[in-house]
Order: sequence, then structure tokens, then C-alpha cells
Amino acid sequence: MTNNSYQKLVQLSTKAAHYNAISMILGWDQETYMPKGAIEMRSKQNELIAGLVHQEKTSETYRETLGSLIDLETGTVLTPHLSDPQKAALREWRRDYLQTVKLPTSFVEEFAKTTSASMHAWQEAKENNDFKSFQPHLEKVVTLCRKKAELLGYEEHPYDALIDSFEPDMTTKVLTTLFERLKIPLTALLKKIQTKPHPNAAFFELSYPHHKQLSFGKQLLADMGFDKSFSRLDETAHPMCMPIHPNDMRMTTCISPTNLMFSILSCVHEGGHGLYHVNLSKEHFGTPLGESASLAIDESQSRTWETLIGHSLPFWQFYFPKLREMFPENLGDVLLEDFYKAVNLVKPSMIRTDSDEVTYNLHIMVRFELEKALLTEELEVKDLPDAWNGKMREYLGICPQADSEGCLQDIHWSMGAIGYFPTYSLGNLYAAQFFETFAKAHPHWKEEVAKGKFSSLSNWQKQEIHQFGRQYLPEDLCEKVTGGPLSEKPFIAYLENKYTPLYHL
Amino acid sequence: MTNNSYQKLVQLSTKAAHYNAISMILGWDQETYMPKGAIEMRSKQNELIAGLVHQEKTSETYRETLGSLIDLETGTVLTPHLSDPQKAALREWRRDYLQTVKLPTSFVEEFAKTTSASMHAWQEAKENNDFKSFQPHLEKVVTLCRKKAELLGYEEHPYDALIDSFEPDMTTKVLTTLFERLKIPLTALLKKIQTKPHPNAAFFELSYPHHKQLSFGKQLLADMGFDKSFSRLDETAHPMCMPIHPNDMRMTTCISPTNLMFSILSCVHEGGHGLYHVNLSKEHFGTPLGESASLAIDESQSRTWETLIGHSLPFWQFYFPKLREMFPENLGDVLLEDFYKAVNLVKPSMIRTDSDEVTYNLHIMVRFELEKALLTEELEVKDLPDAWNGKMREYLGICPQADSEGCLQDIHWSMGAIGYFPTYSLGNLYAAQFFETFAKAHPHWKEEVAKGKFSSLSNWQKQEIHQFGRQYLPEDLCEKVTGGPLSEKPFIAYLENKYTPLYHL
Repeated sequence: MTNNSYQKLVQLSTKAAHYNAISMILGWDQETYMPKGAIEMRSKQNELIAGLVHQEKTSETYRETLGSLIDLETGTVLTPHLSDPQKAALREWRRDYLQTVKLPTSFVEEFAKTTSASMHAWQEAKENNDFKSFQPHLEKVVTLCRKKAELLGYEEHPYDALIDSFEPDMTTKVLTTLFERLKIPLTALLKKIQTKPHPNAAFFELSYPHHKQLSFGKQLLADMGFDKSFSRLDETAHPMCMPIHPNDMRMTTCISPTNLMFSILSCVHEGGHGLYHVNLSKEHFGTPLGESASLAIDESQSRTWETLIGHSLPFWQFYFPKLREMFPENLGDVLLEDFYKAVNLVKPSMIRTDSDEVTYNLHIMVRFELEKALLTEELEVKDLPDAWNGKMREYLGICPQADSEGCLQDIHWSMGAIGYFPTYSLGNLYAAQFFETFAKAHPHWKEEVAKGKFSSLSNWQKQEIHQFGRQYLPEDLCEKVTGGPLSEKPFIAYLENKYTPLYHL
Repeated sequence: MTNNSYQKLVQLSTKAAHYNAISMILGWDQETYMPKGAIEMRSKQNELIAGLVHQEKTSETYRETLGSLIDLETGTVLTPHLSDPQKAALREWRRDYLQTVKLPTSFVEEFAKTTSASMHAWQEAKENNDFKSFQPHLEKVVTLCRKKAELLGYEEHPYDALIDSFEPDMTTKVLTTLFERLKIPLTALLKKIQTKPHPNAAFFELSYPHHKQLSFGKQLLADMGFDKSFSRLDETAHPMCMPIHPNDMRMTTCISPTNLMFSILSCVHEGGHGLYHVNLSKEHFGTPLGESASLAIDESQSRTWETLIGHSLPFWQFYFPKLREMFPENLGDVLLEDFYKAVNLVKPSMIRTDSDEVTYNLHIMVRFELEKALLTEELEVKDLPDAWNGKMREYLGICPQADSEGCLQDIHWSMGAIGYFPTYSLGNLYAAQFFETFAKAHPHWKEEVAKGKFSSLSNWQKQEIHQFGRQYLPEDLCEKVTGGPLSEKPFIAYLENKYTPLYHL
């Protein structure tokens, strides 16, 4: 009977997952090949599919089936004979369900409508460097986010509810501690680096033909283990990975002739996400066991590939000769050593997505503090630009000349995704901590990577992380994989070990 | 109240149309860019969406709403105050509804399952030239088609029910008369042509670089009036037009380096379909007024562009110099006159899709006669190859050496689409008859086309045909546009006027 119920729940959940996959295909199409004039129709299609997912996941049948397997109030599993992974799946289904039903349909609709208008306003405001036009929209969004926190509920801080909606069980308190511990060593390291001369990276700004960049990116993904039979690489305005299904993995990059590193490292980053989702259990597609553990864990996999591998010397020992052969006119005279230094140039940037490994998390801290203050009404939206500029000076020692490269740079707030940014930093920390464990288990990883062999890492990730889906909560997964709780130490150690020799500190 | 009901029906129908549009996007994706490994997941997605369309179009609400506006039994419109187009829409909604509900879900599922297996078997049988392996599948399909005819109902001939499901109100009797009238002049013309030497067309088989063919095709579509903002051209194994929405028109072509004309004329053909659907009323999207009148009328638009324009001298007066400039190594020595003759080479081919204007309809007649005989059990499936070969000798004077280029060449029967082929011939006849009227109204069309100006034709088509959607039944539309019923005469006259001087008959 309960086995039947479990199977029924799997069926209901899988149906919703199929709808969700359709919605991802529509999203992928919209960003890649859809004629622009089709956007109005596409919005209606998106709305319909989103409605179907919601309907499946909140139906009376769904509630009854889930409720017969796990107590929705207390979370007690009512079916002790199920396996541990199945019990974990129930825990996660319940988490999702409660989060979904705590937000009434009227609220969800208002949120969708408000943020849709707000995203549109943000885009114009950013283009015109006009914060004032965006301000009333953001005010509404912040008010709705406060309401969202109340509806979801929290014990200590309203921000907890928002973080938790993106990263299960993460709290403001834990984040505050992590960021405090990160801030001093990061800013100290940055100051030391800033006393040294910058490496020359001017060759990155030469012109690199589009089709060659694309073919280099495709080769990189092939080397990482992607095959055309289940994956593809296209181009979009912003790089992304659309994990439709382990057999249908769609990554994109963004190619600009004068920004070679961006397209290459975007491929590696999105490939890192892609590998995670390729390695998720096909058998458990549609259930929490077939989903990535959390946004932060997902980001840790992409950042592992982008930074710990893609910014490493062994990686470029293998790829730089190939790149030089492809672009002899630009790189013919460049030495590997200088190229590697240029890839790892540390320089505070106004723009988060252009940031190096040392300063990236400082950008997140700026946002974390501002988000908290907005939520608790310590900061009013109208004062956001000044507050932003002040924090940028405090953390990065630079100040934007325009809001378009300041508080208007990211889309997240316009989308109502307050509480999302910290997952990027958590991804960096998890990446370093996981990688420390991997490197101990595979002391020859550098020699392998220098030969273009990545399977030790990808197999290790699959074995230790990917295969479990959401069976373990992020913190438990971290304990299981690394033997300890999440800590900023491996990340700081990684940076110091790398940049001390690199910059002769 | 009835206005409300009409609006409600529009809403219900539009919702189903949005699902249908999603299904077309999935179909387009599947043929263009989807990784092959994703096919299993895609089938499940397709099944889900097809189920949603069916559910919307057969719901009790749908039946009640439709039934309150038009008597489902008699077809009497119950709401006399509605406009003529609205009344016509009701007539078509009712037609679709009755066709849908006459086929029980169990039958539809069995049909889908049987034809899915049969299409797979057909593909293998065609590759291996092995009719025997396909025979049991086709037997099941033919049995189901007989059952389909019984379920749909007919007055005179079971084939009527099948034709009607593709072409409203068309009958075996009308088709038989048309084909009889076509057969003698077509075979006579063919025989006369066969006494003359073939023009040289060997230069078509030289190698034409892929990317140049694609860019030529894109230019052609741009000249026909397609803009990137609402359309695109991609490549698939078989050319197609996916009319997702007037603002989202996706055409494809198939490029082979040694078959230049196929890719070019496919673009023009699919562009002809595309223009029809671009010009359909956006306001009436989701209702019969926003759909093309019938398969035959749709085909008439594509064939107008492909044959009456794309095979015409003025067309090549404009494009041949451009083509020669693009491919000087292949066409540098070719004269326009010889190129035009080569484009219009008449030669019986085993393959329908490779056929010229003179022999194309003879291929359809072969299929028409065999389909009728299969349906009435005058012909058994096991005897199909012999019957096919006999008919090919009779109509075209040639006989396939293998079933793969004989009765296995087309996908239609494996799909259960018995009754579909005649719409291709009807398309050719409508095309010639419509074009005769157009040419009378625009006596200078040749001069315009010779300058690459196509707007007289596309505007005329929009004004006379496209804008009405399904307001007029095909036969009524023909009367309205040309002042007379569908006739084979304009088509025969067109061929004779064209090929008599071309072949010095």
C-alpha cells in the first residue's frame, strides 16, 4: 500500500518534472533561436506551463499522497520500511510542498506580475543609468519579499526565510559568521596584491575570431566528457546551463571577439553545472533524488571547473599550446607563464561577473549586507545607490561612477531573488573544501589535468556528490564528503597558496 | 450571454492552440537541434502535450459551450446575431469537434501506438529494401484506417471519410473525376516531351558549398518578405514549415552539396506555406479564423511559390545572375536559357518528391488508386509491391527496381495518413487556378518578378486567401477567388503553354 503510494508520488512528481522540462526547452529556445517577435506568445506559453506545474504540485491528490507517506506538520516519515534515499526524498518533497503552499496563489501571481514589470524597468534603467525610474519598482519588490519572508516564516531573521528558499537550512547567522571570517583575510590579501605590479593581460583584448572561439569551447566540453548525443553548446547573451534531462544538457556561452577568456571560462563553468546534471540519476528523474542538492552545491561544481581547474597552471599547460596554435597572430609571442598570470589577474572590478577569485566574494558581501538592511527597513530603496557606493569603497576600495555599473548591474533584485546572492559565495567555499578532499585522494591530479585528462575529477564528483541528488542536505553532504562542516579555511588557504607565489607576496 | 459563450469558446480554443504551439516548438526542436539521446524524454513530453490538447478540446465545458452556440447534431447556428466569420468559425469548430469525439480515446491510443511502431518499421524496411518486414505493420495500419472510416462515417465510399479528415468535404467521386480528366492530357504531354532530347542539367550535380546554399536560401526568404524578427530558416533531414504563430514562423531546408535545386526550391516551397501562416489573422489566433483553409489550400500556396514562380523564367532572370556570381566555378559558362531549361527538365522519376511539374500528379494518382483498393480490400497489403509497380508502368512508363524506391518511398502510409496524398494534387490544381486569376489582375507580374519584386503576389494572396483563415470552405474559397469551381483546366493550360515552347513540341 505505502509502496504504491510512494510510486504514485513518483508518478505525480515526474509529470510535473516533464512539464518543467518543457518549460526549460521553451526557455532555451527563447534565449537561443526564437525570433524576437514571438516573445508575447512565448510569455503566454510559459504562463500556461508554469500553471500546470503548480497545479500538479498542489493538487489534493498530491497532498494526500505525500501526506500518507510523511507527516506534513512534523516531517515524521510514516513509512519506516522505505529505504534511506526514499525517506530523504520524502523530506525534500515535503520541504518543496510546504514552500509552495505557504505562498498563496494570489501572492504568487502578484509576485510574478510585479517582478515581470520590474525586470523590464530594470533593463531600461540600467541602459539609461536611471535608478530613479527603477526605484518604485524595487520598492514594490522589496515589500513583496518582506511579505514572502512572513508567509514562509522564520525563527530569527526575516532574511532566513528568503535564504532558505534558495539554500535549504542556511541561515543569516551562519552566513554572517562565514562572511566575517572571509572579509579580513580577503581584504588583506587584496591589499598585498595591490602593492605589486599587474601582469600584462592586454593580449586578451585583441580580436579573436568568433567561430574559432566557439570551436575551442566545444572542444573543451568534449574533453570534459560531453558528447553530442546528449549535449550541445550554443550562444546566448548570458552564458547558462539548461539541465533539461541527463540526456539533454544544453549549455551556452557568450562570445565577444575581444573577450576571449570570458567565452572559454563560461564554457568550463557551465560545463561544470552540466556534468552535475548529466550524472544525476536518470532512474530518479522527476524526484528529489534526481535533482541537484542545492544552488550552492550546484555552483560549487561549476566553480570547481571554472576556477580550481580553469584558472590552474596544469589546465593551461595543456590548453595554452592549443590556443596559441589557434591564434598565432595574437598569442605567438606570449609565454605560458605570462598567460597563466594574465588569467589570474587580480584587480577590483565594478562588475561582479568580471571579478577574479580574490574579489568575487567581496561583491557578494556588499549585496548580502544591503539585502539584509533592505529587508529589515534599516535601508530605504531610495538610499540604495549611496549605500552601494559606500560598501563598494569599504570592501573593494573602488566606487562606481554610475548606478548602471553599481547597484543596477545585476538582474536578481528586479526578479525578486533577494537571498540568492549568498549561494554564489557558498558555492566558492564548497568548491574549495570539496577540492581539498579530492586533491588528497588524487595527489596526481595536476599531472593528469596537464595531459587534458579530467576523468579523475569528474568521476570523483559523480561518486561523492552527483549521484546522490538531494539525498543529503548541503551541510550533511559537506560533512560526508569532507569530514567536516562548511568552512572558509580551505578557500582562504587555496587563495593564499596560489597568489603568494604568483604575485611574489 | 451568447457573446459571452462565444468569447468563452475562443478562450478554450486558444488555450488548446497554445498547447499546440508548444507541441510545434518541441517538434521543431526535435528535428533541428535536440541531442539524439533525448528522444525518449521527448516522446513523453509530446504525449503529455497531446493529451492536454485532447483534454481541452473534448472537455464537458468545451462541449457545452460549443453546443450552446451551434447545434452539434444538425450544424444549425443557434446564435443568429453573430457575424458571418463567427458563424463560419462555429461551423469549423463543430467539424473538428465531431471528428475528435467520433474517434474514441481507446482507438486514438491504439492508432498512435500502431503507427509509432509502424513508422519505425518503415524506416528500417526502406533502408533494407525489405517490404516483408513492413507488411504486418502496414496490414494493421490499413485495418485501423478501415475502422477509422467506419467510426467517422461516410455516405458513398469509405475513402470519403479519410479524405474528409484531411480535406473538408472532398469526396472520392470528385477526386476520381478530376484525376480522370488529368490523366489523359498529362500522359499525352509527357509522351510528347519524351520524344524530344533532354536539356543538359549536369551542372546541378556539381558541388555547391553548404554555407553558400544556406545564405542563398535566406536571401530568397528575405526577398519573399520574411524578416528575422518573426521567422527563421534552419536545416532538417526533410524540409518543413512549422507555423507556430504569425510572429514565429520557422522554415527549414535540406542542403546537399550536389543537389542545389532541392535546397533552393525547398526554401521557396516552405516560404509559400510560411507566408500563408504569417498573413493569418493574429487577432483570431487559436480559432478556425486564424488557421489555413485546408491542407490543399495550404499546399496551393507553397506550390504557387515553388512551381509557378520558382520554376518561371522571370524568377531566374532575377536570380540566375546572382547564383552564377555566387558559384562562378560551376555556373560561369551556363546561359540563363539553358539554366531555365534544366530547372524545368521533365523526366519520370521513381521518387515523387524529385518529380517535375508534369509527372508529379501521376505519382499521386498511383497512390490514390492503391489507397482506395487497400481500403475496400480489393488489394491486399502483401500484393502492394506488384500493384505499385504495375501502376508506375501504367502512369509513368517506368518500374522501380526495388521497393525502397517503390512502395516504401513515402512515410505517409506508415503514419496511417491514408487519404492525405490527394491534397498534394489538389494543391497543384488550386495553385494554377488561383494563379490564373492573379495573372489576369496583375498582367505585369513577370516584369515585377524579373526585378525580384514579389509583393504583388504576396499581397494578392493575403487579400484573397490568407486573411480569411477557415472562413470559407476550400470549394467556396475557390469560387470566391476565381469565380468558378475547382477545375483541372488551368493546370493543364499552364503546363501546355509552358512546355510546348520549352520543348518545341
